[in-house]
Amino acid sequence: MVLHLLKAAPEDAGRLGDALIRLRKEIRYCAICHSITEKEICDYCSDPNRDDSTICVVEDIRDLLAVENTSQYRGRYHVLGGILSPMDGIGPDDLRLDSLLVRLKDEKIKEIIMALRATMEGDTTMFYIYKKIIQIHREDIRFTTIARGVSVGDELEYADEVTLGRSILNRVPYENSMTRHER
Amino acid sequence: MVLHLLKAAPEDAGRLGDALIRLRKEIRYCAICHSITEKEICDYCSDPNRDDSTICVVEDIRDLLAVENTSQYRGRYHVLGGILSPMDGIGPDDLRLDSLLVRLKDEKIKEIIMALRATMEGDTTMFYIYKKIIQIHREDIRFTTIARGVSVGDELEYADEVTLGRSILNRVPYENSMTRHER
Repeated sequence: MVLHLLKAAPEDAGRLGDALIRLRKEIRYCAICHSITEKEICDYCSDPNRDDSTICVVEDIRDLLAVENTSQYRGRYHVLGGILSPMDGIGPDDLRLDSLLVRLKDEKIKEIIMALRATMEGDTTMFYIYKKIIQIHREDIRFTTIARGVSVGDELEYADEVTLGRSILNRVPYENSMTRHER
Repeated sequence: MVLHLLKAAPEDAGRLGDALIRLRKEIRYCAICHSITEKEICDYCSDPNRDDSTICVVEDIRDLLAVENTSQYRGRYHVLGGILSPMDGIGPDDLRLDSLLVRLKDEKIKEIIMALRATMEGDTTMFYIYKKIIQIHREDIRFTTIARGVSVGDELEYADEVTLGRSILNRVPYENSMTRHER
């Protein structure tokens, strides 16, 4: 990068420097969902066309973008900013959990979708959040998790046993899988 | 293999030859589900401890073994012996479909689980069988398909968009995914 900048016009280096300074100054975390934004509240939280009744809980902004890229979700988000991992010294206090519990007091919210990675750490975090949510006594909230199963395009023979087992247990009525409507 | 047999004792070649002859003579297709067996009816069909109300439809014996290895399924099977694929010249007449439709006349059967590969050919075959089953007018039969989704152990970021989209649409209540009971 240095060699490239030395060869480039001085204004180029100036513009890049300015952009980096502005990035750190102007980009901040959304006050509601903790995704990144240039404003106080991010576009995902302020968009009036999104569904207020669902919150999708993700680990970080990259996972939010992955979910957003599927075009299959039009609700709100909550970015935890990490995942429980004792090995890396990340405990419950390092996640943005309190603000999620505050958001859940809103009667409008009817479903929490956990879209965390399908690893031991993801499952542990999911279980911890589930226990926390039970404590706030909102029996009308559905607590769901994204389906585990055989990837689209995969052959059964090459799927691992745990994944194939889960995809049999969590099988879906064919009509649902065909029309792709939200349940 | 030839070089190995030339070096081995003559009896070894004899035993291998006998085994191959016996294989072709004694191994045959099960009269009910078309999996392979040494008897008239295979162990999956004759085992009284298996659940008679469910049939899992698979492409071939390898997929049957993959489902069996998960230890999550205790129903009956039906092996199609192939998958619809016009490119390879495989049409509906090449699949063992008629015998499936005959089996479905049995009132005991309450669910058909389609465990086909998650490709275009698999989806086409599934749709064809679905249409066939509708014609025999058994409204009490559930027609389900194994879940598509993020593989166990995977991170969201690396899942393809279609798979992640499906796993959001077909999300499951957390309680179900935790206890792993059959729905």
